[in-house]
Order: sequence, then structure tokens, then C-alpha cells
Amino acid sequence: MRPSGRDVSELRPVSIETGVTKHAEGSCLIRMGDTHVLCTATLEERVPPFLKNSGLGWVTAEYGMLPRATTTRMRREAAQGKQGGRTVEIQRLIGRALRAGVDRVALGERQITIDCDVIQADGGTRCASITGGWVALRLAVNKLMKTGEVISDPLVDPVAAVSCGIYAGQPVLDLDYPEDSEAGVDGNFVMTGSGKLIEVQMSAEGSTYTRAQMNALLDLAEKGVAELVAAQKAAVGA
Amino acid sequence: MRPSGRDVSELRPVSIETGVTKHAEGSCLIRMGDTHVLCTATLEERVPPFLKNSGLGWVTAEYGMLPRATTTRMRREAAQGKQGGRTVEIQRLIGRALRAGVDRVALGERQITIDCDVIQADGGTRCASITGGWVALRLAVNKLMKTGEVISDPLVDPVAAVSCGIYAGQPVLDLDYPEDSEAGVDGNFVMTGSGKLIEVQMSAEGSTYTRAQMNALLDLAEKGVAELVAAQKAAVGA
Amino acid sequence: MRPSGRDVSELRPVSIETGVTKHAEGSCLIRMGDTHVLCTATLEERVPPFLKNSGLGWVTAEYGMLPRATTTRMRREAAQGKQGGRTVEIQRLIGRALRAGVDRVALGERQITIDCDVIQADGGTRCASITGGWVALRLAVNKLMKTGEVISDPLVDPVAAVSCGIYAGQPVLDLDYPEDSEAGVDGNFVMTGSGKLIEVQMSAEGSTYTRAQMNALLDLAEKGVAELVAAQKAAVGA
Amino acid sequence: MRPSGRDVSELRPVSIETGVTKHAEGSCLIRMGDTHVLCTATLEERVPPFLKNSGLGWVTAEYGMLPRATTTRMRREAAQGKQGGRTVEIQRLIGRALRAGVDRVALGERQITIDCDVIQADGGTRCASITGGWVALRLAVNKLMKTGEVISDPLVDPVAAVSCGIYAGQPVLDLDYPEDSEAGVDGNFVMTGSGKLIEVQMSAEGSTYTRAQMNALLDLAEKGVAELVAAQKAAVGA
Amino acid sequence: MRPSGRDVSELRPVSIETGVTKHAEGSCLIRMGDTHVLCTATLEERVPPFLKNSGLGWVTAEYGMLPRATTTRMRREAAQGKQGGRTVEIQRLIGRALRAGVDRVALGERQITIDCDVIQADGGTRCASITGGWVALRLAVNKLMKTGEVISDPLVDPVAAVSCGIYAGQPVLDLDYPEDSEAGVDGNFVMTGSGKLIEVQMSAEGSTYTRAQMNALLDLAEKGVAELVAAQKAAVGA
Amino acid sequence: MRPSGRDVSELRPVSIETGVTKHAEGSCLIRMGDTHVLCTATLEERVPPFLKNSGLGWVTAEYGMLPRATTTRMRREAAQGKQGGRTVEIQRLIGRALRAGVDRVALGERQITIDCDVIQADGGTRCASITGGWVALRLAVNKLMKTGEVISDPLVDPVAAVSCGIYAGQPVLDLDYPEDSEAGVDGNFVMTGSGKLIEVQMSAEGSTYTRAQMNALLDLAEKGVAELVAAQKAAVGA
Repeated sequence: MRPSGRDVSELRPVSIETGVTKHAEGSCLIRMGDTHVLCTATLEERVPPFLKNSGLGWVTAEYGMLPRATTTRMRREAAQGKQGGRTVEIQRLIGRALRAGVDRVALGERQITIDCDVIQADGGTRCASITGGWVALRLAVNKLMKTGEVISDPLVDPVAAVSCGIYAGQPVLDLDYPEDSEAGVDGNFVMTGSGKLIEVQMSAEGSTYTRAQMNALLDLAEKGVAELVAAQKAAVGA
Repeated sequence: MRPSGRDVSELRPVSIETGVTKHAEGSCLIRMGDTHVLCTATLEERVPPFLKNSGLGWVTAEYGMLPRATTTRMRREAAQGKQGGRTVEIQRLIGRALRAGVDRVALGERQITIDCDVIQADGGTRCASITGGWVALRLAVNKLMKTGEVISDPLVDPVAAVSCGIYAGQPVLDLDYPEDSEAGVDGNFVMTGSGKLIEVQMSAEGSTYTRAQMNALLDLAEKGVAELVAAQKAAVGA
Repeated sequence: MRPSGRDVSELRPVSIETGVTKHAEGSCLIRMGDTHVLCTATLEERVPPFLKNSGLGWVTAEYGMLPRATTTRMRREAAQGKQGGRTVEIQRLIGRALRAGVDRVALGERQITIDCDVIQADGGTRCASITGGWVALRLAVNKLMKTGEVISDPLVDPVAAVSCGIYAGQPVLDLDYPEDSEAGVDGNFVMTGSGKLIEVQMSAEGSTYTRAQMNALLDLAEKGVAELVAAQKAAVGA
Repeated sequence: MRPSGRDVSELRPVSIETGVTKHAEGSCLIRMGDTHVLCTATLEERVPPFLKNSGLGWVTAEYGMLPRATTTRMRREAAQGKQGGRTVEIQRLIGRALRAGVDRVALGERQITIDCDVIQADGGTRCASITGGWVALRLAVNKLMKTGEVISDPLVDPVAAVSCGIYAGQPVLDLDYPEDSEAGVDGNFVMTGSGKLIEVQMSAEGSTYTRAQMNALLDLAEKGVAELVAAQKAAVGA
Repeated sequence: MRPSGRDVSELRPVSIETGVTKHAEGSCLIRMGDTHVLCTATLEERVPPFLKNSGLGWVTAEYGMLPRATTTRMRREAAQGKQGGRTVEIQRLIGRALRAGVDRVALGERQITIDCDVIQADGGTRCASITGGWVALRLAVNKLMKTGEVISDPLVDPVAAVSCGIYAGQPVLDLDYPEDSEAGVDGNFVMTGSGKLIEVQMSAEGSTYTRAQMNALLDLAEKGVAELVAAQKAAVGA
Repeated sequence: MRPSGRDVSELRPVSIETGVTKHAEGSCLIRMGDTHVLCTATLEERVPPFLKNSGLGWVTAEYGMLPRATTTRMRREAAQGKQGGRTVEIQRLIGRALRAGVDRVALGERQITIDCDVIQADGGTRCASITGGWVALRLAVNKLMKTGEVISDPLVDPVAAVSCGIYAGQPVLDLDYPEDSEAGVDGNFVMTGSGKLIEVQMSAEGSTYTRAQMNALLDLAEKGVAELVAAQKAAVGA
């Protein structure tokens, strides 16, 4: 029995509210149960130095947590003078995941930065950031296409992510914090709307797992991502 | 004529929504027009080293802006490795302002940290942080009083803040960003519910002002703070 | 009765010695009683990026304290790897205050940096820095006018600052450290030689104040600044 | 055809030389072709604060690259004032991977730090670090068992890692740098000597992959890890 | 011919003014020609962790330059977020030099920190810091002896330092900045009042030197240090 | 009697193995007994800003220690966020020493960076770094001369370094760690193949020394450097 009473293959309630900040080129507030992440897309007509004059675009991401997004207050990273290892690891994952779904030639030589800021955390913030981040990205690209700055759609297939893990011996979909802190094995699965894999990260903490268990989690992830992609499409009106 | 069409002594629409995060001991989302600040209060049963065994409580504040709270994206302070001078200056003001309204003996030897994170900025974020911060503080203290951990109310008089400035030659209340960026003189006024002053900061940028102008702004501020205190009281059900 | 035996409206003995370092374009050592600040002006034929090709000049300030300027030794900020919040707040104030008295068109596209280093501290270091900083600035501008690089004087009116506070229930002028550490309300007042206001910062620490008290402090400040401006004029031979 | 002429399921020549530094409790130099990593184990009779009095041991890892381990010189992280995101991500992986193979009750309340320093890089440095790091860990634990400080062996099953990827459309084992920089999909696979999975990280860069491709890489990884475990056992004389 | 017209074995005019700050336990302003350094001694009844309960005292030093101590303004180290390599190198030398002249058993378990802040620089600041630093140290120790906290004098022999170099082919004593910037070979010589050596640092920049040249500089240094020690003694009234 | 049983004027066994990394333009692993340092030379066709268009080349050095190069593990400097004072002091010495032996006009406007990374430490790492660093430099310059990019040899005379000290009252050559930690006086001597001096650093820690003792150490150093230069020549095949 899951602490939330959910079925093993049941996502938390998902809501994606778009247009939540007036300044960003794209934005949404994604809620996966009690995990709430504000995602904004910033469009800039410049690229990092290594892409100058390449004709290729760039998508990158930054991640943060408000100090009291968690049960006990965490120290503010800006006040500590550096981003923690976990933050760095997560924002590199978000950037890599979103880039995998972008045709960078079609985007052209410009950069889109996705900021994912966790307002409230209850497990699965990196997956929610990817799913919500893609919505912000989609909205920013829509603007570029509306103005004709971009002709061919660089986002051919949505990108979404979900976590799965083995909780109380049972493979379950979309871990919340009480499950996540108990699970000996958990994974984050980034996939496309058409069911292709982009990134799999599956770790055991003080434990191991079998290929059969891995496959069971992949099956759950496929189901979850399909539902998340439907929510993304509804949110962006596609 | 003000860009927003407001009267010279008219606040922007104010809304204070409480209980917006499930983890914090007190929280609110304050909206002053398009300026939106999330304020949380964290209660800890410890004090800074200089207050150990003093019997006195402590209230402190931290301030941050999401990178895309503004028209153009600002670099994330955590990624830059330090808080900017403006951030430091603001969070010191918020802490000082709120402490002035606290009976630290009555609070007892515990610390309350107020985090003010700007979700969307349109001028006046430091004043909104003080006004909303007091609401979060009030809610956290209410919890302490309900459990009997605190007997005598340490918050005898609400604390709120508003900015005023001279825009197009005219003293106006509650500057928004278009006004703020044009005003040669502006001030931040922190006051109590009973009309006492806590902090006045009034600066000219490339200009000067007279005592008569200062008094005009103080008159406006008194009116504005009275309205904000009414909104605070409504929000906390007092 | 004040600890120093001074009258309530009496400044500490003021001395401003100019030309104290051979390298700087302008310099002075200002002594307000036992508070001693070395102020130097550095002239550079460049401006910050945001003023490139604007035709406008820039005046900025940096502030520091020698580690043993105080009763007990403070850690050296360079060794700590960052400037403290108080330092940042003060140097922003000094820069803003001095800029308010500069005609930046007349100065032309060049930068003057005022360094204020506290050799010995006994309260009121930020005000002494502003008063002494203006003298260093004046001397550096004099050089520019002598060589004809600047034609129209960009410093039309001196800028000076003084602190006032309520000590033992009494408004007093120019707080020294024993008074400052006891005062529940104190303010820093930056004004011009012609009596205009540039910046007022008046704070209560764990207390509040009335407009009547504020006016009493402003009256004292006007008297004090007039005397400081006379000392500035004497020092620069104007 | 692979640039190195290797067969698709062929590891680079592996050599593990132990006892390479006189100070460390365990050490080895692992060479996977032209990738050379020096791994040392440091034993300390203390644990991180969160494990004080828990009876549990801790294994952690740090990773670094000498500046000229690579084709062009990289800036020294110590001189830059921080570890890069890639470094942080890798050392977290190494620590997690090794911990998964440790019985922390059997180890007792002590800490072993594995330092992995890349002397020369040609792809696959994180996997070589895990494989070599386990050897250093094994040697340090052997010392503890010899002295009787540890009775029950906390390392029941070796831990090793290998990368696989899709190069020129073909799944291949143990990518070297020329392959790694071309591969659109690659993964790092951490497993135990008995074939259990510890961590799978499989990413597409600007691309996607199928479950069939994932399974093909897992098959290769199982073969590679088995050979690496044999090399580990030979190196530690087990 | 030296730029200053001095004889090859002639020091710059030396002046050591004591008691220049009211807070420090010992202080002086040392002037070697246009090089002016403020030296303060801070006494603390604690030692670094590695000396706890050793019965031994500690003497350490910190060094800084005001930003406009030099011909062109240097960036403030506190604002840059770290001390430069030259600063670190110099302050380690000062501490080592002064410690060599201290009987740390006689001093007892307490720490004296010597702060050397360069107000104006014209070459030889590290040597002036050592010579002036010893005076500040002497004055602080005198206080300890007066109160009886220290019985046996821990400073048996004064410590002073001077630079020498080969300028225009000629060995000269006490380089000023114009000489220092031209000299291909220069050295810093720390000695005691009785003529013993404490530290010799003699470097060639893009050049080499012979033992005969080294000896010629040592002869000059002996003469110079003897004169400096006489000035130290006069300053402390010994 | 020396702990190692060596004669007072006997170097530790020296070995210099070249070509130890495939990427660097020059490299060697130098072993002075149990002190092992990996030295690499990186050639870049650019110079620091202050040498742009000067026609002059630049040689600089960086130094590091692997965390477990020493008896007890030291914290990794990259993880601490800065290089320690000792590291900075040493790398400045290495750079200065090597530059003294370079004809920077003959080198032409290019930069060579020498990285010295201590794999295992047993005293004398800075001297081994200079001696080994020169070998790496020589090999990199040989490449430039082979291709004709440099015509006139910029390295006319080898540069090597050795430490000497007074151990148990006796001047001894080439201190190892047990001697170094006991010696009250020690020095580092950098010389050329033809016996000229480049840098002498001779310090007493809590002690003093005479000119006669200094001369005794210099005599030993001359003998030691001559033997090291022979080893350098053998290593580079000159």
C-alpha cells in the first residue's frame, strides 16, 4: 500500500498552468501533487562562445529551490556562495534532456534558458522540472514561430520525465517524498511523446537491482510519460 | 498623469494570500499590482551565537529574486557565487524593519527567518517583502501562541512598508517600475499600525530634495501604510 | 549628559588634512574626533560598460576598515573572501551620495573612484567618509579643471553628511561610538552646502520614533552639515 | 569499424597496478588503454556528522583531472576556485556506486575516502575510477581485517563499471575518446561481480534511443564488467 | 647614480611613530622615504587549534595595501574575493620573520597578530612591514610585561629587514620603486639586532647572479639592518 | 647520522622519466627518493595581456598535490574553493625560477605552462618541481625548434634546484621529510648548469643562522645542482 493510497501505476494529480509570469517568453507552474515548480523560458539572441557562427541554437537550464520549499529550511545557495552538488547535477540533467528534443539547426543561432524554481517540494522535482520546462520552451518557441523568426518547428516531439522506484518491494510510478526516502532503488526516466528514450538514470542506494526490475520500472515510466505528454499538450493547446 | 492611471495617493491593488506552502510555519503570497513576493516564516528553536542564553529571540530575513522575475533575465546569484550588493542591502532592511516590531523578550530564545522571494517584479519589492513578511511572521507566532510556547504576544503592532517618490514633479504613492525608473527622488517608509516610524530611507539619484517634499512623501506614506495594515489584518483574520 | 561632555548640538572636533598620499589625484585624512578616515580619489579615463559612449561621467566609492580600526580586531575582509553586508551597504551609500552632487555631463565620460579606508573608528565612519570623500573628489576635479580637461565645474554644491540620534531620550548631533551603541534611533543625513537633502536614512533598532523626533534630528543635522561644509571649504581653499 | 580496430565487444587492454603510493591505506593505478587513473583509499576513524553514533560506516569519493590529462590543457579547478559541474556529477556517482557494494554495518563507524585522479584521459574516466576505486577500497579494508578492526567482510561482491554506446550505428563496448565524442547515445553501467545492477546512466545527446538499443548496451556491459571484475580479483590476489 | 641621489649604502630617511591608533595593543607608522606602513599588534588570549594546551604562544601577520597606495589604483582584494598571490607570499614572510625572534615559551599560550597595511608604497613594503611590525610587537609585549602576565622577555633580539639589489650594475641598499622596477637581481634580508640571519630571499628576474654579488648585498644589508635596529630602539625607548 | 643513512652531501636517488603523458608537449616524472612529481609543459600560441605585441614569450607554472600524496590526507584545494598560501608561494617560485633561464625574445610571443603535480611527497617537492619542470620545458622547446618555429635556442643553460638545511647541527644536502620537519634552518637553492645563482630562499623557523652556515649550505647546493643538471641532460639526451 502506498502512503498516498495511490495505485502502483498511478501518477499524482498533474496540473500545468501556463502564462504565470508576465516577463518570460514562456512560463508555467507545474504541480505534481505537492511538488510545485515554476518554469520560465528566456529567449536571447546570442549563443555561448563555442557556438558562435555555427548556425546552431542552444537550450540550457538552471535549477533552484526556495529555502523553505522543504520540510526543514535549507540554506540559500546564493548566501552560501555556491550551488550544491545536487543542484548542479539536476540542472545539467534538465538541460541535456530538453536539448535532446530540439532540432538546433531549426532553432537557429539563439539561446533559450529554462529556469526551474521549486516553490514546494514533495519528491520528483527534477522530473517535474523537465516536464514543465518543456512546456515553457514550447511556448517560447511558439512566439518565435508566430513572428516568423523560426520557420521549421524545432520541437518535433514533446519531452517529459517521471520517476519510478521499488517501494516496499513493489515497482511504483511517480515517487513522492515519503516513498523516495524509503526506496532502495529509484530511477528517472526521460522520454519523448513517441515513446523514445532520452535519458535513464537508475540508482541503488546501498542495494542492487536486476534487469527484470529495471524493465518493470521502464514499463511504468512509459505509462506515466504518456499521461504527462497528454497534460503537456493540453496545457499548450496542441 | 501616472502611467498606470492611478491617482497620486492610490496604492496598486493589494492581495495577500496566506498558507501558500505546506511546509513553512507561516507563509503568504503578497501581490502589489504586478509585484508578487512569496514570504515564508521558518521557526527554529535556536538563536545566533551572540544571543545564546540571553533569553532573547531573533528575527532575520533573506531576500532573493527568481532570475526571470524581471523584464530581462538576471544572472542567478547562486550561480554567480554571491549575493549582489542590492540583495544584501534589502535583506538587512527587511530584518531590521521586522525586528523593530517584535518584543524579543516575549518571543523567547528562538529564531524566525523570513524568506522573501520575488516571483515577479514591478517596483517596490522591498516594501512588499516587509508587508508580506510581517504576515508570515504573524502566522508563525500565532502557532507558538496556540501551543502555549509563547504566552505574551511579541507582535504588538503590525509593521508595513510602502515606497513614495517624486514622479514628473509630483509626489506619488507606491511607485511601480515605470515610475521608479524615472523618479529622481524616492523613499521607502516602514511604519507600524499605530503610525509610528521604524525606518525612513529617502534618496535622490542625481538630484536633491527639500524638507517640504520629504513631508509630502511622509504624508502619502502614512495613508498607504494604513491601508496596507488593514489588508494585513484582513489576511490574518485579526 | 553626553559621555564626551559635548553639548547636544556640538560636533566632535573636525580636521581635514589634504594631500596626504602622493599618488592619488585627490586625498584627505578626515578626523571627526577619534574617527579617522583616509579618502582618496582616483581618476580614470574610462567608464563602466553601461555608460560607454553616453558622454556621462561616473563617481563610485569603495569602503573598508583596517582590521584593528576597532576596539577588538575584526577579520580582514580580503582574507574572508568577501565584503560583509555592512561594508556593501555603506559603500553603496557613499557612491550614491556623492553622485547626487555631481553634474555628470560636465564631468564628461570619465570615472572617479573614491576609496574610504577607516584607520580608526569611533562611530560615524560612513558620514565621515562622505564628507572626506567629497574633499578628495573636489581636489581631483580641480586638477581636471586646471588642465582644461573639464571646463564647467561639475561640483556645484558641496556634499557632507552627519549622524544624529536619540541618546538617553535626547536628540543629539554626531554620535560617537558609546552613544551609537546605546541609541535606539539614529539616522544618517546627507545634505548639500545649500541645505538641500540628498539622503536620509533613519532607523529604529527594536523601537520606533515619531515625526516630531525625526524633525528634531533633521534640525540638528542641518546645523552640523553647515559646519562640516565650512570645514570642507577651508580644506580645499574655497 | 572502430577507430582503435577493436571488436565491438572488446575492452581496451586493462591493467591494474596496486600499491603505487606509499602513504595511502590502499592504492592502484588503473589503465584502460590510454586512460590512466590513480586511485587511493584513505581510512579515517571518524564519520560525517549525520552518522555520528550510528554504528554505520561511510565511503565517499573525490575526482579530479590533472590540467594536462587532456588533449588541450584545462584550467586547474583549484585555481578557478571551484569544482566544475562535470567533476561534481562524477564524484557523486563514484561515491554512490562504491557505497552500494559496502555493508556499512560491517565496516563500522569509520570513513574511507576514495580519491580518483586522472593522470591521462582517453574516455571512460568515471568508469575506470569506479573499477580502480573498488580495488583501492578492497586493499584498505583488507588492512582493517588483518588487524582485526573489522571482522565480517563489508565488501561481499566487487563493483566495477564500464561505458557502452552506439557508435556509427553499432552498439560498442568501452568507448574511447574518439568514439565517445562521436556517439549520439552512451551509457555508464555499474554492476557487481555477481551481475547485479547498481547504477545505469544512459543519455542521448541530441538524439533518442529505443529499449532494444538499451538492452543491447546492457548485454555488452555485462560482458565487460565480468572481465573487469576478473582483473580486479587478479589485482587484489583474490 | 641612484635616481634619488642617495649613496649606494644609504637608507632612505626612516621614521617610526608609535602609538598611532588608540585601540591596538601596539602600533606604529613606519616611513621608509615614501613607503608608509601602518603596523598594529593585536593581543588575544587564544592560540590556533594546533597549539591548544601546548604552552606555546603564536605570532602571525596579515598584510594589505590600500587600493590607491600605488601609482595606479589596484583592485581592492576584499572586493575581488581573495588575497592575491603576492599578498599571501608577503604575509607568510612577515609572520615567519617575526616568529623567528620570539621565545614562544616565554610568551605563553597567547596570540599576537601583526597587521601591516600599506598607506603609500614606493618599494620595500615587505621589509618596512617587518621592521615596523617588530616595533608594534615590542609595544604589545611591553604591556604584557608591565601587567606581569609575561615575566621573562620573549623578545630577546630585535628583528628588522631591508632590501638590496643590483641596480645599474651596482649593489645598492634599500631599493625604492624606480630602482626596484629596474633591478635584475634583488633580495630581502631579515636579520636580528645582533647580526644573525633569519631569512634571505634573493631572486633574479630574467637574469642570474654570483656568490660574490650575493655577498656584496649581504654586506650592505648588515649595515642597513644595524641602522634600522637603532631606529627601532629609539622608537620603543630602549 | 641522517635518518636515511645518506652521507651529508649525498642526494637521494634521482630518476627522470620523460614522455610520460601522451598529450603534453613535454613531460617527465621526476623521482627524488620517495618524492615523485609529474611535470608537464603545455605550449600555447598566446601570451598574457600585458605581453600582447611585445614579441616576448612567457613561462609560468602551477603546482598541486594530490590529496593523498602525504602521510595524512589533505583537503583537495579544488573542493575547498581556493589554493592555499603554500601552494601559491611555491608556484610563483617555480615560474620565476624557470623564467630566469629563458631567453624570452628567442622564445617568441608564445606561452609555456609548466604543471607540477605531486603524486607522492617526502620533502623537497618545490625543488623537484623546478628540476623536473625544466626537463618538461626543454622537451617542449625542442619540438618548437624541430619544426623551425623557434630558431635560436631560448634555453641556454639548464635550471635545477635543491634544498639544504641544518639537521642535528650539521649542514646536509637534499632534505627528506623526516629531516625537513626537524631542521631549524633550511633553504632552497635554484641555480643554472654553469653554477650561477637564480634564487636563494633560506629561512630559520624559530631560530637564526650565520653567514658561515649559509655558505656551507651554498657549497652543498652547488654540488647537488651539478649532479641534478647531469641527470637532466641525460634525461633529455643532451
